[in-house]
Amino acid sequence: MLISFEGIDGSGKGTQLRLFLSYLKNKNLPYIHVREPGGTELGEILREIVLKGQFQIYPKAELLLFLASRAQLVSQIILPALKENKVVVADRFIDSSVVYQGVGRELGPELVEKLNDFATDGLKPDLTFYIDVPVETALKRKRIFDRIESEGIEFLKKVRKAYLELARKEKRIFLMNGEKAIEEIHSEIILIFEQLYWGIIR
Amino acid sequence: MLISFEGIDGSGKGTQLRLFLSYLKNKNLPYIHVREPGGTELGEILREIVLKGQFQIYPKAELLLFLASRAQLVSQIILPALKENKVVVADRFIDSSVVYQGVGRELGPELVEKLNDFATDGLKPDLTFYIDVPVETALKRKRIFDRIESEGIEFLKKVRKAYLELARKEKRIFLMNGEKAIEEIHSEIILIFEQLYWGIIR
Repeated sequence: MLISFEGIDGSGKGTQLRLFLSYLKNKNLPYIHVREPGGTELGEILREIVLKGQFQIYPKAELLLFLASRAQLVSQIILPALKENKVVVADRFIDSSVVYQGVGRELGPELVEKLNDFATDGLKPDLTFYIDVPVETALKRKRIFDRIESEGIEFLKKVRKAYLELARKEKRIFLMNGEKAIEEIHSEIILIFEQLYWGIIR
Repeated sequence: MLISFEGIDGSGKGTQLRLFLSYLKNKNLPYIHVREPGGTELGEILREIVLKGQFQIYPKAELLLFLASRAQLVSQIILPALKENKVVVADRFIDSSVVYQGVGRELGPELVEKLNDFATDGLKPDLTFYIDVPVETALKRKRIFDRIESEGIEFLKKVRKAYLELARKEKRIFLMNGEKAIEEIHSEIILIFEQLYWGIIR
């Protein structure tokens, strides 16, 4: 089972992901945790370039770097783990490219979906938790931004809007209100996960 | 005008490219020279990874890295140079991906052509010199191989066959017999270039 966590930086996505991993550990469920870009030797090098590079990266090149990292991650890590029936928990996956590069960078969300399909051989998450907060809330929580997140408030607003549209469109994406208390969001995530997981396993 | 030089390593492609650049210089024609992967700060980092990386890179990730390098090169260097009416001379371009990744790595040449179109916004060379030699000749000439060229003789034979098919299909690609004398090949290249260049300029 492949589960992704999505949201703009400062949404609380990282906190919820860590709580979810603790839950899996306590339940003795076999799992691995990956992040994007990254998660492989190649991917971590690309992460450095794309998030911390000091030079301009053109939008198409940026997208292609994320896709390269994703293709490597799927082939090298995710598919083998799924074969071993592990729960794969991904900090960002295909939806990030759709909203950041497809909508934020205006490359077109449908085109990015097609390119995602190429990179992942059509693999999609079974379940996606999108942690939603207003951009203003995210900015208040966060002080340090990477190259992409530092694009400014208008860019982030476009990205959030795209996330909300995607969540409406895709049944696998659950929209979580990121302004609720941390423990409350976590409980909701567990509830949704358990229904789906035991439904699949039984 | 965009001109690419193609061929397997050891074909004499590099020698012909240098002679051609000398010719442009002597004629006082404005030109720039780029190489792939590479040619930009991002591209040169990707070149290191993809040609010298000590870890396995999966075929789709490899293709996407070449495409990222290409997208950056086109936006940052090639398009501005073409706007200034410079002759852009490229050591490898779109055809390399078609033959090495599309055919050699079996990702499919048509698919790679589509992805090339995305990365370059449909930009194709006006003129391509494909320097053809039998794989055995290339191997005799060359002692050091990069990560991709070291794939072995069967891989290189598939790549050469794909180059020959592409040269048959695409009018812009001129098939040069790389077993002729260096000066003879160079003269043929100049002849073809001058016909096309002055035809375009006049």
